[in-house]
Amino acid sequence: MRKNIMIDCDPGHDDVMAILLALGNPDFFNVIGVTTVAGNQTLEKVTLNLRRLYTYLGMSTPAASGAAKPIARELVLGDLVHGESGLDGWDFPEPTFELDSTNAVTFMREKIMNCDGKVTLVPVGPLTNIGLLLATFPEVIEKIEAISIMGGSIYAGNMTPDAEFNIMVDPEAAWIVFKSGIPVIMSGLEVTHAGGITHEEIASLCAKDGRVSKMCGDLLKFYVSYHDGVGYASFPLHDVCAVMYLLKPEIFTYQDLQVEIDCNDGPTLGRTAADLREWMKYENPNTRVLLDVDREKFIEVLFEAFTNLDVMCAQ
Amino acid sequence: MRKNIMIDCDPGHDDVMAILLALGNPDFFNVIGVTTVAGNQTLEKVTLNLRRLYTYLGMSTPAASGAAKPIARELVLGDLVHGESGLDGWDFPEPTFELDSTNAVTFMREKIMNCDGKVTLVPVGPLTNIGLLLATFPEVIEKIEAISIMGGSIYAGNMTPDAEFNIMVDPEAAWIVFKSGIPVIMSGLEVTHAGGITHEEIASLCAKDGRVSKMCGDLLKFYVSYHDGVGYASFPLHDVCAVMYLLKPEIFTYQDLQVEIDCNDGPTLGRTAADLREWMKYENPNTRVLLDVDREKFIEVLFEAFTNLDVMCAQ
Amino acid sequence: MRKNIMIDCDPGHDDVMAILLALGNPDFFNVIGVTTVAGNQTLEKVTLNLRRLYTYLGMSTPAASGAAKPIARELVLGDLVHGESGLDGWDFPEPTFELDSTNAVTFMREKIMNCDGKVTLVPVGPLTNIGLLLATFPEVIEKIEAISIMGGSIYAGNMTPDAEFNIMVDPEAAWIVFKSGIPVIMSGLEVTHAGGITHEEIASLCAKDGRVSKMCGDLLKFYVSYHDGVGYASFPLHDVCAVMYLLKPEIFTYQDLQVEIDCNDGPTLGRTAADLREWMKYENPNTRVLLDVDREKFIEVLFEAFTNLDVMCAQ
Amino acid sequence: MRKNIMIDCDPGHDDVMAILLALGNPDFFNVIGVTTVAGNQTLEKVTLNLRRLYTYLGMSTPAASGAAKPIARELVLGDLVHGESGLDGWDFPEPTFELDSTNAVTFMREKIMNCDGKVTLVPVGPLTNIGLLLATFPEVIEKIEAISIMGGSIYAGNMTPDAEFNIMVDPEAAWIVFKSGIPVIMSGLEVTHAGGITHEEIASLCAKDGRVSKMCGDLLKFYVSYHDGVGYASFPLHDVCAVMYLLKPEIFTYQDLQVEIDCNDGPTLGRTAADLREWMKYENPNTRVLLDVDREKFIEVLFEAFTNLDVMCAQ
Repeated sequence: MRKNIMIDCDPGHDDVMAILLALGNPDFFNVIGVTTVAGNQTLEKVTLNLRRLYTYLGMSTPAASGAAKPIARELVLGDLVHGESGLDGWDFPEPTFELDSTNAVTFMREKIMNCDGKVTLVPVGPLTNIGLLLATFPEVIEKIEAISIMGGSIYAGNMTPDAEFNIMVDPEAAWIVFKSGIPVIMSGLEVTHAGGITHEEIASLCAKDGRVSKMCGDLLKFYVSYHDGVGYASFPLHDVCAVMYLLKPEIFTYQDLQVEIDCNDGPTLGRTAADLREWMKYENPNTRVLLDVDREKFIEVLFEAFTNLDVMCAQ
Repeated sequence: MRKNIMIDCDPGHDDVMAILLALGNPDFFNVIGVTTVAGNQTLEKVTLNLRRLYTYLGMSTPAASGAAKPIARELVLGDLVHGESGLDGWDFPEPTFELDSTNAVTFMREKIMNCDGKVTLVPVGPLTNIGLLLATFPEVIEKIEAISIMGGSIYAGNMTPDAEFNIMVDPEAAWIVFKSGIPVIMSGLEVTHAGGITHEEIASLCAKDGRVSKMCGDLLKFYVSYHDGVGYASFPLHDVCAVMYLLKPEIFTYQDLQVEIDCNDGPTLGRTAADLREWMKYENPNTRVLLDVDREKFIEVLFEAFTNLDVMCAQ
Repeated sequence: MRKNIMIDCDPGHDDVMAILLALGNPDFFNVIGVTTVAGNQTLEKVTLNLRRLYTYLGMSTPAASGAAKPIARELVLGDLVHGESGLDGWDFPEPTFELDSTNAVTFMREKIMNCDGKVTLVPVGPLTNIGLLLATFPEVIEKIEAISIMGGSIYAGNMTPDAEFNIMVDPEAAWIVFKSGIPVIMSGLEVTHAGGITHEEIASLCAKDGRVSKMCGDLLKFYVSYHDGVGYASFPLHDVCAVMYLLKPEIFTYQDLQVEIDCNDGPTLGRTAADLREWMKYENPNTRVLLDVDREKFIEVLFEAFTNLDVMCAQ
Repeated sequence: MRKNIMIDCDPGHDDVMAILLALGNPDFFNVIGVTTVAGNQTLEKVTLNLRRLYTYLGMSTPAASGAAKPIARELVLGDLVHGESGLDGWDFPEPTFELDSTNAVTFMREKIMNCDGKVTLVPVGPLTNIGLLLATFPEVIEKIEAISIMGGSIYAGNMTPDAEFNIMVDPEAAWIVFKSGIPVIMSGLEVTHAGGITHEEIASLCAKDGRVSKMCGDLLKFYVSYHDGVGYASFPLHDVCAVMYLLKPEIFTYQDLQVEIDCNDGPTLGRTAADLREWMKYENPNTRVLLDVDREKFIEVLFEAFTNLDVMCAQ
């Protein structure tokens, strides 16, 4: 039986790669919906990007747009990495793919409640939509198998020394998710930096003929240009990890830990504080924190998905 | 044209009085819905109390139950005042009144969007349902005329020196409401203590024959017994103010102020901080803070509503 | 027996008036020391202002300079009100009055420990020096009769909706003072605004011949010009209250209350949260909060001090 | 020229080892003073322990006792590890060693200002004394070469998931130290756990004849019994690291990082948040964070100090 997933995203280059990894493995994933949330760019832009992507692919997934801002904070955008459009680097067609008119939260509730089996949520942007879903419609909780998020970090942040962007943008939403009782799989900065892509690998994508592989090559070329000064050997494809773990858990290492969210103003706002004390024994730590991944295998599996889509989306 | 209102409550003795004030003025109010939220007691108990009340009245209003706990906090109950059931002091019949099966948030959204005119929300418990409504379905915002809350205080709290119960239970929900752009009318502790009821007035209710007046007398006798030691001359009927202002604004005094919510852990968590600095000029202060009320007129109008209901609900 | 006081200040116009009120009542006050702290202006400037003042008066009090910044915060200056020098409006002579070479904290410790009786501290700037004194040399605590501060407010702040300048600049120092067990007399914004001075009263000072009265008139003319737009009928002479209460307690009204300090970042940082709940019974509330004062009597007593000094300081 | 150091401690077993490491290397260290602070136990107890230790050694160092509680917090004790006396496990003689009557803060100021060269501070308890010293007497700052602390952690805490005991007890004091401009060398939990001692090594101490080695063996036997359940291969001698780095920097690995202190109430209070982001370029990061140490070399050097003292303190 295929794994039912819903992807909640703010595309965003790495969001696109995460979606493609799911769509490129149709025998494994049943993508029952895709929803958007403000984060990497405004809700309007990221939703337009999702529509452009699906239009270009010529594919279709039930989709809806969600929260334009965090639950109880003003919006902060992560627009530096992703360019003006939020998805610079490829010339997409005018979108013809249309979203469901329903709000993402209602949409998710309906898809989840009507799904035959349990559903795994894959939020790779701020957790606003998921937080609102769980708080407003707690009846979904028992139908959710796990929440595989891209977000957080247990050592170092990126927005501030302690906080990762997706969590810091909406820490209250993160609090709801981590306190929900649903198992959280956390692809934080530790593992997302372990699963990076090299310039050479990007170049190899650009050199391909396939419509999807080539697009990914060009998008990633733009995406990594932002990080160029930092001197990375490979560039994190953050959101991809949250999907990849569901597909290939065996290539990851992880620790099961109790994680708390700091929602207080001050220097550590948005921190995902993991309890690393050996002598604390939690019966059910709330989070599987991914820590490392076999990078080459990671890229190989990702590229296979692109190649599958090259065939599936050939015009 | 009658004023469309929705009451969101956690009955609770004063919640009941607030509902009765609305129902007892059918020419003025069009009560398009009543919803429940955890606060004075658990969601289960306050919802049962609402059903018992309507069953006893033999009346009907569309109703739904909502959040069983705050958006991003653990639940704290205010059960000391209201007794074990949350509405001790009257022997209610087995409830036959049934709620809508929809969640309060969806229910409110539908009622608001389908209403001919604008709607005024009257939340008299923690603001959880309203916060979730505004965050999840922001399209309702332009259809909401005002939010008349019972909650907060600008001088002294009741839970802590600085925080009033309804706000402290769910400060993030309060943040959403006060930042929504919708005019807030705040019946904080200043005005609710100004509009109190005396032992004599309660006794006069108990002495009445009317089914509703008598019930109110007995309920209030239980309710004020909790405060007896404090030495009040009159006892606050907190939630009633939020409805009363809509009905008789002329008996209140108020100030229009910018109010912020403190959501940080620490000694002032849950404070509704009003900007009282004379030299600050806000173009549109977010809150009308009620400060005082003509107490005798207040009680007179409330008792009239009870008397109207004595007739409407005579069996 | 005269009351032993030490004044800790950041002159500042109202600081000067407070000092003059003490010096102009030599039969009542034994001013055993004056110390300076950064606040209204930098430590350098406020210390220079103190020296200028004493040089002009031709008087002498043991004096020392103290903290150049708050205990555990970066410094914020309140320089808007007091002008570039921190004491604009009068042309002072080159200072010849010299300070003790000791740090204010050591200085205070020695003066207090060597004083025959108990000492009352009168801090009218940020509480940094006092906080450091109490934390570093707790042996002084039993020799301090009371701490009469200018700072805080129980209703409205001035720096932010909730925080008064002196407390907000160094909330940790305030925490130390309010938790010290020493009785605190708090001249917060409520009483300091009640004890304001009018344009006419200032003009009457300017018209006098006395060296001190005239200086005060000119200084106050500058000082109130900052507040002119606000539309005050009278202008607060904040720091004066902290001395005046010791001299004429009978002209004040007050409440004894438990006051906590909010040291957390966020919208209420620096709040002096007073517990106004009637049903809370503190055996020894930590603070006498002054609330109101007989304004005319207040000004009369202040002007008498100036007149006394006109004589004492005649050249 | 020998390195001038002052040790500020709350003995405590590992405090004793840290002092002994310094005293046992008299050609390298000039210990110009030792001071005490509340932490592992009350000020009274830790000061008594210091006096007992020096009495037993028959040695003398200028010493003084300091703060009995944190600057702006209530005291929390770390007494579980160190037993009722704060130094259980050895039968010390009645103390004859006497302290300077001066307060530790004044004492440190005088020792530092009168020292020929610069002084390195080695605080291995809560930073209260050092924070008060720097805040009260900032003139010492330019005479302090470095502050080598035991405290903090950049990955995991011990009191809470994020906070180490010494920092959490007095975060405001830590704030002062880390913001002082003086280079901080931080022996946090990462390095202190790397430099642990084994059961076998403790047994080898117990088997020795030397008065100091044997005492250390017995003290450590008590000390590690607390950690026994955790399953450590070796047991951290936390405070020793702060002295050891000054003596043998070459056996440590470290990173120079900007570290901030979280002083806000909430789940991360007391966190030493290090900025691990590669792309942040601080010109002068405030902290050298020790991360690892050659454990065997560490123990070897420590035991040599004990052996030296066996000779120096033979009766």
